[in-house]
Amino acid sequence: MSEAIEKATRAHEASAAMRRASNAARVDAIRQAAARVAEARDLIIDANRRDMARAREAGMSAPLQDRLLLTDERIQGIVGAMRAVADQADPIGRVLTGRTLDSGVRMEQVTVPLGVVAMIYEARPNVTADAFALCARTGNAVVLRGGSAAHDSCRAIADACRAGLVAAGLPGDALQLVDAQGEEGHRETERLMRANGLIDVLIPRGGAALIQSCVRNATVPVIQTGTGNCHVYLHESADASMAVRIVVNAKTQRPGTCNSAESLLVDDVAAERLLPPVCAALVEHGVALVGDERARAVAAAHGVKMGAAVEEDWGREYLDLKMSVHCVSGVDEAIAHVNRYGTGHSEAIVTSDYAAGERFLAGVDAAAVYVNASTRFTDGGMFGLGCEIGISTQKMHVRGPMGASALTTTKYLLRGDGQTR
Amino acid sequence: MSEAIEKATRAHEASAAMRRASNAARVDAIRQAAARVAEARDLIIDANRRDMARAREAGMSAPLQDRLLLTDERIQGIVGAMRAVADQADPIGRVLTGRTLDSGVRMEQVTVPLGVVAMIYEARPNVTADAFALCARTGNAVVLRGGSAAHDSCRAIADACRAGLVAAGLPGDALQLVDAQGEEGHRETERLMRANGLIDVLIPRGGAALIQSCVRNATVPVIQTGTGNCHVYLHESADASMAVRIVVNAKTQRPGTCNSAESLLVDDVAAERLLPPVCAALVEHGVALVGDERARAVAAAHGVKMGAAVEEDWGREYLDLKMSVHCVSGVDEAIAHVNRYGTGHSEAIVTSDYAAGERFLAGVDAAAVYVNASTRFTDGGMFGLGCEIGISTQKMHVRGPMGASALTTTKYLLRGDGQTR
Repeated sequence: MSEAIEKATRAHEASAAMRRASNAARVDAIRQAAARVAEARDLIIDANRRDMARAREAGMSAPLQDRLLLTDERIQGIVGAMRAVADQADPIGRVLTGRTLDSGVRMEQVTVPLGVVAMIYEARPNVTADAFALCARTGNAVVLRGGSAAHDSCRAIADACRAGLVAAGLPGDALQLVDAQGEEGHRETERLMRANGLIDVLIPRGGAALIQSCVRNATVPVIQTGTGNCHVYLHESADASMAVRIVVNAKTQRPGTCNSAESLLVDDVAAERLLPPVCAALVEHGVALVGDERARAVAAAHGVKMGAAVEEDWGREYLDLKMSVHCVSGVDEAIAHVNRYGTGHSEAIVTSDYAAGERFLAGVDAAAVYVNASTRFTDGGMFGLGCEIGISTQKMHVRGPMGASALTTTKYLLRGDGQTR
Repeated sequence: MSEAIEKATRAHEASAAMRRASNAARVDAIRQAAARVAEARDLIIDANRRDMARAREAGMSAPLQDRLLLTDERIQGIVGAMRAVADQADPIGRVLTGRTLDSGVRMEQVTVPLGVVAMIYEARPNVTADAFALCARTGNAVVLRGGSAAHDSCRAIADACRAGLVAAGLPGDALQLVDAQGEEGHRETERLMRANGLIDVLIPRGGAALIQSCVRNATVPVIQTGTGNCHVYLHESADASMAVRIVVNAKTQRPGTCNSAESLLVDDVAAERLLPPVCAALVEHGVALVGDERARAVAAAHGVKMGAAVEEDWGREYLDLKMSVHCVSGVDEAIAHVNRYGTGHSEAIVTSDYAAGERFLAGVDAAAVYVNASTRFTDGGMFGLGCEIGISTQKMHVRGPMGASALTTTKYLLRGDGQTR
C-alpha cells in the first residue's frame, strides 16, 4: 500500500474516535499539542535549520525563505494561534434547525465533523499546526502534505501535535503527515487527491498552480482557496480623497495577499478628475501602473508614468506593487468587466451615488462586495470568524473567509416512537 | 464550438439577467411556463409517443418505460409541481448573518444564486420541468442533458418553459437543453462535465453508474445524489412488533426508492426473538432474504427461507424486494458495519434502550439517522423543504434532502464610509 493511502486509511479509522470525542477532549488535545510545540522549540528550530540550509543551496527566493524560516518568536506565534483555536466555541453539535414532522417524528439538524480533511500546502511550516488545531477543534482527522522544502520542520511540529492527541486520550493517528519526497512524493500527492472513501475534503493552500492542479486532478471534493484578482472601481460620483485612500490601501498595505486590489476601474467621464490624484499616490507608494489607451492619455497629460496594458493584464493577480488601470462607460460596464476577469474574491466600488452602490452590490458575483471600503477587509479575523483556514473563491459549501465551521457538515437526527410511512 | 459549450455559454450570459431578476419576475416565469406546459399537453404527449415507440423497439424494461411515459394526469402533476415551486418563499436575498466590523464597516451575508446549474439525468421527462422550476425560483440559469430515450418529450417541455421565461421578460437562454444524441451526445455530456467557468454546479440524477461517471470525470463541482444502501438495526432491546412494522415499511413501502432499507442488522442475543417474526413478515410481503450463517440458522429453525449472503451483499443497493440479514455483537459493531458498508444516506435503529439510541445517533456517519422510525421519511417534502432536487449523500455544501436553498450560495455585502486597514 502506498504511504498516502496507508496514512489516509489510518486517519479514516481514527476519525471515528474523533467524531465521538467530547468538546473537552478536543480542546485538551490542542492545548497539550501547543504545550508540546512550545517544549520542542529547540528541536523544531534545529529541523528548520536543516530545511533552510537545503533551501539556500537550492537557491530559494528570499520571500519564500522568509516564509519557511522559524524563530523563537514565530513558534510563540504558532503556539498562540493554536491556543486561540482551542478557546473558540465548539463548532460541533450546534442545532441549526429542527421541527416535528407531521408523523410526530422529532427532527433536528446538527453540525458534525466532515471526517478526514486533507491539506496540501507549500513550504509554510506554520500551516501544519494551524491545520491540526482547526481539524482537532472540529473533530476531524487530518492528512497533511506539506511542501518538500519544509519537510523537517513540518515533521517536528506534527510529532509534537500527535503527542498532544495521545496525551488527551485521542488517537495520534488522527494527524498524518505524508513524508515521501521528490518524484515519489508527487505520486503520493496524486493518490491523496483520488482517495475517495478515505478523504472527505481536500483543501489546497498555496499558489494558483497548486490549486489548479488539485481542481483538475482530484476526484475527492476540493475547496478552492485564495486566488484574488480584486478590483476597485471609481464611480463618476466618487470622492477623490476617499478614492485615493481606498485604492492605496487596497493595493499597497500588503500587496502579497489575495484580498489586495490588482486592477483599478474608473468611469470615463471622471477619469480626468480621479486618475491623476489616485495614480500619483500609487506611484508615490512604489506601484508600477499599466493602463488602457484612455487611462494612459490622462496619466501622460498629468505627468504620471503608466505602461501599456495588454489583454492578459486584466486577468492577472500580480501579488506585487503593480496595478492595471481600465476606463469604463459606467457601473454596468464595470460590473461586466469584474465578472469577466475577476476571480470572485473581493470587489469594491467607491461612490457617493446610492443607486450605483446598490447596483454594484447586486450585480457583482464575488464572495465579498464593498461600497466605500478597502478590499483588504476580507479576512476571517476581520469578519469575526476566528482563525481562518483560507478564503474560498468557490460557491459550493462555503464562500469567502473560512472559519472552523467550514470543516463541518450536518446530520439530521430523527427520534420516533415507531412511525412508518 | 460544440453544442454543449455553446449552450453553456448562452446560459452563463443569461445568468446575469437571472441574478438581477426580481422575485416577482422569477415567480411569473414559472407560472407562465406551467401554463404553457398545460397548453402544450397534446404536443408533449405526441412527442412522448415517439419516445415510447423507440423505447419499445429498443426493448426498454417495463419499469423504465413506466418512468418515461407521460399521460394527461402526469402532465397535470408536472404543472402542479411547478406551481408549488413558484409558491415557495423566495430563497434569494435572505440575510443569514450580519455584524458591524470593528472598523465600522456594516457587513451582511445574503443568499444569492449559484449562477449556472447543469443537470444530467436519465429518461424521466418530468425532471426537465422540475429542474427548470427550481432553477428559475433560485435565479439560476440551467443546462439540461436528459436521457436520449426521453429526448422528444424533454424538448417539448423545455420549449414550453423557455416561452414562459420570455413571457415574464427574462431571457429564454436561461434554459438550455442539449440535443445531441448517440456518440456525439456522450461527448457533449463530457464537455459539460468539464465546462469550468461556465457551469457552477453539476447535479446528476439517475443510477449509480451515471453518478459515478460524473464524480470521476467532472472538473466542475458535483453534488452526489441518490445512492442509498440503508440499514435497519434491531437492538437487543427492540420491541418485536415495532421492529416488524418499521422493517416492513422501510423495505417494502416503495422498494425502488433510495431511502428504502436494503440490509437488516440484528443483535446476536436477540436474533432468536426478533428474526422469526420480522423475517416471516418480510417473506409474506414478497421479500427475498439472504443472510449470514447465524441468521440462516435462526431462519431455518423457524421455517423461514433465507439464501446465503456473500460479501458483496452487504454493499448492495437492491432497489428491489430483496434484503440482506446480518447478526452483530451489539451497537458498536452495528455502527461499524453501517459506516463501512452504508452510503451515508439513511440509517435506523429500533431500540427501547435510551443509551443505545443516542450512541447510534452519534456514531453513525450518514445524512439522516433514525431511532424507532422508518428510513422512508428522508424526503424533501417530509422534512418540510418543499420540492426536492434530490438527496445529497455527500458532505459538502448540502447533506440530505435538497430543497431550493441547495441551489444558492452566499455573498458578503459590505457598506463603509471610506474605511481602510
